[in-house]
Amino acid sequence: MDIYSSHIQKLIEQLSRLPGVGAKSAQRLAFHIINMPQEQVSGLAAAITDAKANVRCCKNCFTLTDEEICPICKNENRDHKTIMVVEHTRDLAAYEKTGKYTGVYHVLHGAISPMLGIGPSDIRLKELMKRLEDDVEEVIIATNSSLEGETTAMYISKLVKPTGIKVSRIASGVPVGGDLEYIDEVTLLRALEGRVTL
Amino acid sequence: MDIYSSHIQKLIEQLSRLPGVGAKSAQRLAFHIINMPQEQVSGLAAAITDAKANVRCCKNCFTLTDEEICPICKNENRDHKTIMVVEHTRDLAAYEKTGKYTGVYHVLHGAISPMLGIGPSDIRLKELMKRLEDDVEEVIIATNSSLEGETTAMYISKLVKPTGIKVSRIASGVPVGGDLEYIDEVTLLRALEGRVTL
Repeated sequence: MDIYSSHIQKLIEQLSRLPGVGAKSAQRLAFHIINMPQEQVSGLAAAITDAKANVRCCKNCFTLTDEEICPICKNENRDHKTIMVVEHTRDLAAYEKTGKYTGVYHVLHGAISPMLGIGPSDIRLKELMKRLEDDVEEVIIATNSSLEGETTAMYISKLVKPTGIKVSRIASGVPVGGDLEYIDEVTLLRALEGRVTL
Repeated sequence: MDIYSSHIQKLIEQLSRLPGVGAKSAQRLAFHIINMPQEQVSGLAAAITDAKANVRCCKNCFTLTDEEICPICKNENRDHKTIMVVEHTRDLAAYEKTGKYTGVYHVLHGAISPMLGIGPSDIRLKELMKRLEDDVEEVIIATNSSLEGETTAMYISKLVKPTGIKVSRIASGVPVGGDLEYIDEVTLLRALEGRVTL
């Protein structure tokens, strides 16, 4: 027997499917939503439906966007000869927030992971190689610093090198403001290996 | 300038208004929702709209329910002479999960809090007093063990006592399985004061 009425129960179930939302927080969110003003509830529901209906991948770089071609790919002031390869749209957003990167992007929508059965053909790699047929000078690989991200970076660099295009990988090391004593050994070693002459 | 397209941005904004959802997790949830299958997205949006549209307060005990009178108030096998007073529907649910309480409930929808400007007239107290005009034998006060919950409990007991109806308060003390060393002093003292002869 369900303790809550069917509509509350259904809402709790739907919310608890979201990542990072457990049974308790789904319950808390459900009651919050029921107590929200009507227009705010409609706004939330509409935002969910609209985002799903209108957001698609940019035909060029595959970032999630409202248009056929995303504003970055359309922007003529950006350097289209430099392509930064990232795993997800949120990684692109992280670099855009720095405001300093002037090149364009390529969003893979994942990383190679033999453990999860994700191979090179499951991410947007073929599309990246296709873009390299145009006039490209550098491919900056900015996949995550995880096992999957590193595997993907290695794979891409092996694919791109024969084309003669420069391939680089973002540096890994101690984060700015990071306290050495709290940083794991692998990162510390990586920072040592990647040391820069002053 | 927004980094994300307007539909993604709007969804992130809507999600980050929910309690316990910060900017980062709103972003993560938004991308998860966009990547969910269409029917699951529709299901989530519909659950939100339907819950808001169909859930109301029981006319008798004020718990959130789909019907005019909730299943507990309708149930003739429950003891309608014992009313447990709780702050929220989720507290009722917590007691229902025990499966041992056979009385009925009264949901206040809040607690008296001078700090937040919530007075006795802002919660369902008048409605509780009205119910006591029927044949009621005991009022069990199960408001939270917080300052607001205790204040509300005191207030209710003062209102109910003159009617001659028995008023009780759920016990406070060490939680079952609780390790004494990790329990705060106030609770330890409360447990000592409330000790039971064996």
